[in-house]
Amino acid sequence: MLRTTTCGALSINNLGETVILCGWVQKSRDLGGMTFIDIRDRYGITQLVFNMDDNTELCQTARSLGREFVIKASGTVVERSNKNLKMPTGEIEIKITGLEILNSSKIPPFMIDDETDGGDDLRMKYRYLDLRRNPVRNNMVLRHRMAQSVRRYLDGLDFIEVETPVLIKSTPEGARDFVVPSRMNAGEFYALPQSPQTFKQLLMVSGFDRYFQIVKCFRDEDLRADRQPEFTQIDCEMSFVEQEDILNTFEGLIRTLFKEVKHFDLPEVPRMQYADAMRWYGSDKPDTRFEMRFTELNEQVKGHNFPVFDQAELILGISAKGCAHYTRKQMDELTDFVKRPQIGATGLIYARHQEDGSIKSSVDKFYSEDVLKTWAEALGSQPGDLLLLMAGTTDKVRKQMSELRLEMGTRLGLRKKDVFSALWVLDFPLLEWDEETERYHAMHHPFTSPKPEDIALLDTDPGAVRANAYDMVVNGTEIGGGSIRIHDRSLQALMFKHLGFSTEEAQKQFGFLMDAFEFGAPPHGGIAFGFDRLCSIFAELDSIRDVIAFPKNNSGRDVMIDSPSTIDDKQLKELKIASTL
Amino acid sequence: MLRTTTCGALSINNLGETVILCGWVQKSRDLGGMTFIDIRDRYGITQLVFNMDDNTELCQTARSLGREFVIKASGTVVERSNKNLKMPTGEIEIKITGLEILNSSKIPPFMIDDETDGGDDLRMKYRYLDLRRNPVRNNMVLRHRMAQSVRRYLDGLDFIEVETPVLIKSTPEGARDFVVPSRMNAGEFYALPQSPQTFKQLLMVSGFDRYFQIVKCFRDEDLRADRQPEFTQIDCEMSFVEQEDILNTFEGLIRTLFKEVKHFDLPEVPRMQYADAMRWYGSDKPDTRFEMRFTELNEQVKGHNFPVFDQAELILGISAKGCAHYTRKQMDELTDFVKRPQIGATGLIYARHQEDGSIKSSVDKFYSEDVLKTWAEALGSQPGDLLLLMAGTTDKVRKQMSELRLEMGTRLGLRKKDVFSALWVLDFPLLEWDEETERYHAMHHPFTSPKPEDIALLDTDPGAVRANAYDMVVNGTEIGGGSIRIHDRSLQALMFKHLGFSTEEAQKQFGFLMDAFEFGAPPHGGIAFGFDRLCSIFAELDSIRDVIAFPKNNSGRDVMIDSPSTIDDKQLKELKIASTL
Repeated sequence: MLRTTTCGALSINNLGETVILCGWVQKSRDLGGMTFIDIRDRYGITQLVFNMDDNTELCQTARSLGREFVIKASGTVVERSNKNLKMPTGEIEIKITGLEILNSSKIPPFMIDDETDGGDDLRMKYRYLDLRRNPVRNNMVLRHRMAQSVRRYLDGLDFIEVETPVLIKSTPEGARDFVVPSRMNAGEFYALPQSPQTFKQLLMVSGFDRYFQIVKCFRDEDLRADRQPEFTQIDCEMSFVEQEDILNTFEGLIRTLFKEVKHFDLPEVPRMQYADAMRWYGSDKPDTRFEMRFTELNEQVKGHNFPVFDQAELILGISAKGCAHYTRKQMDELTDFVKRPQIGATGLIYARHQEDGSIKSSVDKFYSEDVLKTWAEALGSQPGDLLLLMAGTTDKVRKQMSELRLEMGTRLGLRKKDVFSALWVLDFPLLEWDEETERYHAMHHPFTSPKPEDIALLDTDPGAVRANAYDMVVNGTEIGGGSIRIHDRSLQALMFKHLGFSTEEAQKQFGFLMDAFEFGAPPHGGIAFGFDRLCSIFAELDSIRDVIAFPKNNSGRDVMIDSPSTIDDKQLKELKIASTL
Repeated sequence: MLRTTTCGALSINNLGETVILCGWVQKSRDLGGMTFIDIRDRYGITQLVFNMDDNTELCQTARSLGREFVIKASGTVVERSNKNLKMPTGEIEIKITGLEILNSSKIPPFMIDDETDGGDDLRMKYRYLDLRRNPVRNNMVLRHRMAQSVRRYLDGLDFIEVETPVLIKSTPEGARDFVVPSRMNAGEFYALPQSPQTFKQLLMVSGFDRYFQIVKCFRDEDLRADRQPEFTQIDCEMSFVEQEDILNTFEGLIRTLFKEVKHFDLPEVPRMQYADAMRWYGSDKPDTRFEMRFTELNEQVKGHNFPVFDQAELILGISAKGCAHYTRKQMDELTDFVKRPQIGATGLIYARHQEDGSIKSSVDKFYSEDVLKTWAEALGSQPGDLLLLMAGTTDKVRKQMSELRLEMGTRLGLRKKDVFSALWVLDFPLLEWDEETERYHAMHHPFTSPKPEDIALLDTDPGAVRANAYDMVVNGTEIGGGSIRIHDRSLQALMFKHLGFSTEEAQKQFGFLMDAFEFGAPPHGGIAFGFDRLCSIFAELDSIRDVIAFPKNNSGRDVMIDSPSTIDDKQLKELKIASTL
């Protein structure tokens, strides 16, 4: 090695040792006849010291070094006079006797520091310099540790990691598939997988029993903020299990990750019915770092000649702790917030549960204080709390109130990034009505098993059929989801029928899987976690971008090397794409 | 869980326990009033026993089961009367009290046994059934263990696994790139990476210090036998190292793999110069499970009026131990072997070093026995050995003799799959003359560093410049290769010049990397191992196909679900490929 140790390893225990360090010049300062250089590598920073009296030439070379020069320095470990006890190497410095410049550097376009002066665009353009910064590089180290921990846990439970193909046949969700022209089979195309779903089910048919894979998946669609066209999943499947077994196994995975990587004891993960999640939080991924559940107030508010409430299907209220003091301006802000087009509420009714116990509302002319007290009672509010009410059709008002609840949680500081709350959401609906196509779609995917007791409802009330499907939610973000699969060909055929597939369509698109099911498919189920998202929660970030070494920007371009690129006509013709047009 | 244990877990220690097993019916036989069923899962096979007298209905259900039915059986562990000590569970059987058919099965198209009656095509068509067979599934388990072992070893040495992008910008080796049309940026294309080479070098510029990734790579080219369009690499890179450090680190990896996965103590890996490998074995990937080195015989054979030898640039000989008894027919076979078009020799000269010490050759009329004895001496042959000679131009005769040497090794049983011999081949030429384009190409890739002492030769004798490049060879197969990289922009520019790139071309194609080199690139180097090939060697297979769960056939189609597939005009137009034609 060019070095004998790293820049993060030396301490008072190494005094007197002769060492060689390699790294980047972090900063340099001259003090009289001395020059001090901080040398940095992935492992830390060490102070080098040069003395003009001892070796003029060496010290002059040191003074010529610019920021981010790459150097190799040898010398002796000595005790520092002005110790910096905040740094692991802060008690020592290296008295340098040899210095070699391994590479020079232009002046970097922004500071390579924990807090940088580089704007977002500049940092992305020079991602290789941004990655030198501790907070960014540490995210990649965290991601590595998480992957190692996932693999260790699953390997310990007899899961086998199997690589599934990346160049596959296009599947029905094909509209979002990336396609890859084949040179070997002119006019034909591979697709890139949105998930290895069918392959992992085939592995269960093959008796692999327990499969996992940390795997890249691909989706060619509008890139909403914080989506990437390529993303990584922890993909898992098990045979001979029921829902309970999957929940226990993967709750174990997440708790192990929190323990090993964050040193955080995640408590047993509570479970909630999808229907309750919608009723209490207006969302299938409630942020449970704070409570603030919805209360349905139809009984308390209807019949008082206030048309907005009398005409509404559902009136919901929440109680925001200690917010009774909110000013008129703050209330206007909240009203504007719920009226934003993304949320779309028509207005917000509030009542202050004042410190003296009295209640004053924005609709006092319709509601007496006695009535307002029934609101407070239903909401369990205390003096000093602010009651917030919204009305509308069930689905809409729930969504709107969900946004308001999150906003209040944020304002009250109840959504700290270093606090973690996990939740299982269970019993999702099997089918979802699609207004546009006027038919039911599989909410999860078409292989999801209905609850046996609900199968009879498929014919009479398809929307009421619940699935053996589950999501894990952490801090209001869905980090994973899965289901018990259908393993019976006839039930699978019934499902396809209800999803509006003809027998021929189903056979054409899913024939290879349905055929496989005829040769002894075991009962099985699984789950997939979004690894990027999980890493971003562990890294306490809002965005997934900074847990990806080379992310793409919002239009799907590489941040640095500007892909995609054009290819020339010759190449295209060679690909014989033309032949199919 | 539907089961209390697996089909491989029970032994005499579990007698009397009540258990539930799930699995596939392997076989079934009736003996008087008894029925015996072997139930199979990934973990093993257990015998179930049913008694017509105890429970007629249960026994009749058991008799109705077909091969590969999926069942759940409960009962008590009892001792077997006729023990099968070859099976881990062979001392016990389960007296069944409950039986549930979880799924039926059509009769499989071939036997699900270690030795199957299924032909290759049938096994590939029903890959999910082929994967049920122990030898095939065990290969996937082996692959999983190898990946776990690689990750553990590298993690222990502070390597970080970083995921690099799959959708990238097309690079100069672009002719073999798969391209992926972008929907977000109409008319533009991503490429799929042939390797993450540039990304790992950027990570070194970022100070990641030690990177690895087990990663899918892609190459769109003619699929020679045993190549896949998608393949997996163990990709590694280190900073502040010299060649010696890379060799030590990754020799450690391979030896650890052999130790942990094969329980085989691989000795220290010998090192050989590329030039010596060519001289002694006619190959840069010699099979060193056996010696049989070439001897150059120009001195011994020229000047005896045998035109074939007199006119040849190089005459090579090998000595095949104990083959002097080869019949005329066997000699004709060998001659036909070297005359095959793939090898292309014009003939084969031989001499028998007979048991009595005398020597008889196929060219006795040109060579006296005294002269033949000088051949034997040069080749170090013993009575009973067969001397084989070929002549031609240096490159050609070396290649031809290499093939003959391998053939003789095979005939002599010296190439056993369960014997392992590793070798480092060092100091490859930096450049390779390409007859077709009449210019030099980078033998490894354009970022490979020349040996410092050879840089001066770049202008005078480019072909003689050696690279800091190395391959690891196991049993005659190249399993990995790498190099110390150029980290200096001016040396990189010089290399591009010698490779015939104009400054503009170099900047256009590699600008982002060369720009990065200006901000303090550290000295670095790396290696990439072909994981599929490595797994196939560990699995003692000739082909990589059976270490891939869902391989593609020789035309690049998925074995099972027949990708690639056509996409329709509408989809194509949506992709706006047309706009660039």
